[in-house]
Amino acid sequence: MMSPDPFLAKLELARTAAKSFATITTGQKNAALEAIASAIEAGIDQVVAANAIDLERGRANDIGAGLLDRLTLDAPRLRALAAAVREVIALPDPIGQVVRGSTLANGITINQVRVPFGVVGAIYEARPNVTVDIVALALKSGNGAVLRGGSAAEHSNAVLVSLIQEAISSVGLAGDAVQTIDEFGREGASRLMRARGYVDVLIPRGSAGLISTVVQESTVPVIETGSGIVHVFVDATADEDMAVEIVTNAKTHRPSVCNAAETLLVHRAAADRMLPRLAGGLLQAGVELRGDAATRAEVEGVAEADETTWATEHLALAMGVRVVDSIDEAIAHIERYSTRHTEAIVTQDYTNAERFLAEVDSAVVMVNASTRFTDGGEFGFGAEVGISTQKLHARGPMGLSELTSTKWLVRGSGQIR
Amino acid sequence: MMSPDPFLAKLELARTAAKSFATITTGQKNAALEAIASAIEAGIDQVVAANAIDLERGRANDIGAGLLDRLTLDAPRLRALAAAVREVIALPDPIGQVVRGSTLANGITINQVRVPFGVVGAIYEARPNVTVDIVALALKSGNGAVLRGGSAAEHSNAVLVSLIQEAISSVGLAGDAVQTIDEFGREGASRLMRARGYVDVLIPRGSAGLISTVVQESTVPVIETGSGIVHVFVDATADEDMAVEIVTNAKTHRPSVCNAAETLLVHRAAADRMLPRLAGGLLQAGVELRGDAATRAEVEGVAEADETTWATEHLALAMGVRVVDSIDEAIAHIERYSTRHTEAIVTQDYTNAERFLAEVDSAVVMVNASTRFTDGGEFGFGAEVGISTQKLHARGPMGLSELTSTKWLVRGSGQIR
Repeated sequence: MMSPDPFLAKLELARTAAKSFATITTGQKNAALEAIASAIEAGIDQVVAANAIDLERGRANDIGAGLLDRLTLDAPRLRALAAAVREVIALPDPIGQVVRGSTLANGITINQVRVPFGVVGAIYEARPNVTVDIVALALKSGNGAVLRGGSAAEHSNAVLVSLIQEAISSVGLAGDAVQTIDEFGREGASRLMRARGYVDVLIPRGSAGLISTVVQESTVPVIETGSGIVHVFVDATADEDMAVEIVTNAKTHRPSVCNAAETLLVHRAAADRMLPRLAGGLLQAGVELRGDAATRAEVEGVAEADETTWATEHLALAMGVRVVDSIDEAIAHIERYSTRHTEAIVTQDYTNAERFLAEVDSAVVMVNASTRFTDGGEFGFGAEVGISTQKLHARGPMGLSELTSTKWLVRGSGQIR
Repeated sequence: MMSPDPFLAKLELARTAAKSFATITTGQKNAALEAIASAIEAGIDQVVAANAIDLERGRANDIGAGLLDRLTLDAPRLRALAAAVREVIALPDPIGQVVRGSTLANGITINQVRVPFGVVGAIYEARPNVTVDIVALALKSGNGAVLRGGSAAEHSNAVLVSLIQEAISSVGLAGDAVQTIDEFGREGASRLMRARGYVDVLIPRGSAGLISTVVQESTVPVIETGSGIVHVFVDATADEDMAVEIVTNAKTHRPSVCNAAETLLVHRAAADRMLPRLAGGLLQAGVELRGDAATRAEVEGVAEADETTWATEHLALAMGVRVVDSIDEAIAHIERYSTRHTEAIVTQDYTNAERFLAEVDSAVVMVNASTRFTDGGEFGFGAEVGISTQKLHARGPMGLSELTSTKWLVRGSGQIR
């Protein structure tokens, strides 16, 4: 019955093997995770050797220092990966949780319980650590995983997947539930996007371009983990110290991640009082500022902002600054340019705080807190599946339960309609 | 700023108007629903006249008695539609419900609350009643609606949408949040499927072909309300009277709907004892049976089943019957042919009941109850949005809360990381 097409054969293997994951116990899953963590530690030399081939090819192809760094797996990074797998062991198992239930008037009981999706597909780029992260989260939520990690990391991924498969099999479970399709190249990625019936959900992780391609081309349902053009609005009544701390933290604490702020909006009534200190703090921290005319009139050393400033996720020490006349203008700016990830207001005005929370349509909307708190770990979810910027299924930080579906269990005693 | 493209201009109108729905009160929504119900009652003559044009064209195009019946709107049907809108008034408003929340160790509070999607797109065929149903559900859940009801019902839909728009405006809300795109024909339907950024979720309702087209072509997230190849498995230990009642009810109570049973699986150890009575009851009710060799050896008047029998949603008084050697064979048959809507086991064996519930991967899995209970009304959800056969976002009967997304509200007092 196995497909003669080697690509589909792999997907069938994963699908069949993953079925058995739906009914295994938490103890069995945790044993597999522990085996994976141990296998990574025991296989450090093997992984580093394979990674060296990928790195050499990357250097030959001149992929750049940033990509090379993301591609690199050394002993400390592999030990950290093993530790991350062990952290997933400590998380509660979402499968079998009863979401809601009731007894109908006719005596039938209905219970909606969490079940695995089946097979989770992941498409990512040049980050072999994602291979291990995704497998750990998929396994704990009872799912198989089909991985397209990109040709740049092909050798590293092949060894990691092979170690993972053996580790899962070593505790008596179906190691085939994890597969890599890197060897099928770009065509494999395209086919994965159209593998309805084989893969239940597809999670792209990487650049905006990659995510956009997957969203456009995929017929498999996608969970979009999007980019963040994140705004902080400093209202007229903002506490000055608090505003400076929040804006500086939101921009500079870790500028390369999606919950870092990209645009600062300041109420005109607060501009005189606060803009010099806000901008000064940012400039001192090495942030390159691009502002509108009002900002540049208040602060020296600010470049001229243009339309692209507001529409850019800098992911670096750069920030757009604009003075707005009102909370309405701030909300309108956000409405126009936000990627609907996270926005924050800094204010002491109760009505404005509640208006901002109600009217800004983003996954996470904050009052008087740094946008850096949009994070599964900070929210108490434990593991980092990603941050969804779509509205369907999951929105905002995703925990293990966002990697599950549900089904209804109905128990009767002969009822008919 | 309005697009010069008349299609996009309509979508922009809907999107802008729908934004205001996110923050209106339940009282305002209910007032709009009451106005819609009254407008439909007051507009009966107008709708019937427009419907007559559609019916005449339908007869000229020879669309068949079934389609003509579904296309027909007369005074009693319109009064029933108005009554259905009033039933939605009585349902709880899902918007603003707190799904979960907590206070983090640093004092920040996080609350996940239900918010509208924004604009719900609907693609359906020749059933102008769906126009009113979808609008009522969308409005109560705070969403706008862009409707493609098909050219066969174009005149009826145009009058209904115009009545709805005026009714919403009459209570001071944004009537433009509801739009029909029937006048753009098939190209409009195709464009709606690619209207990312304008429409937040697309719900196809209709034939398997329509749903499949939308799933394949849409770049807007889709909620698939799928077809039902629904199975009833009569286990060796089934109570005979209960089995006959459940099977007959599941097949004959309303054969044209998706939760009606299509295939009967009978354990070999129960075939001698029960198959003649099970089949007899079905044959007596006018059901055409297609069975495997073992079934045909037990019962007269059963046609020969072939591969297509098991893969067909008959939606009529027809049923496939197969004798299986074990619960494993029953589960394997379901795994192969089910559309993952609803399956039921009739059994007195505790272990088999729990195995069936755990191992069958369908939206609803039942023990000793008629599959006809897979229904939003029966589950206590009130309104019928549809029954989802996909795993993402919603699975099984959908209530108003399945027409919502969520967002996280974060309230701090100056916290930074």
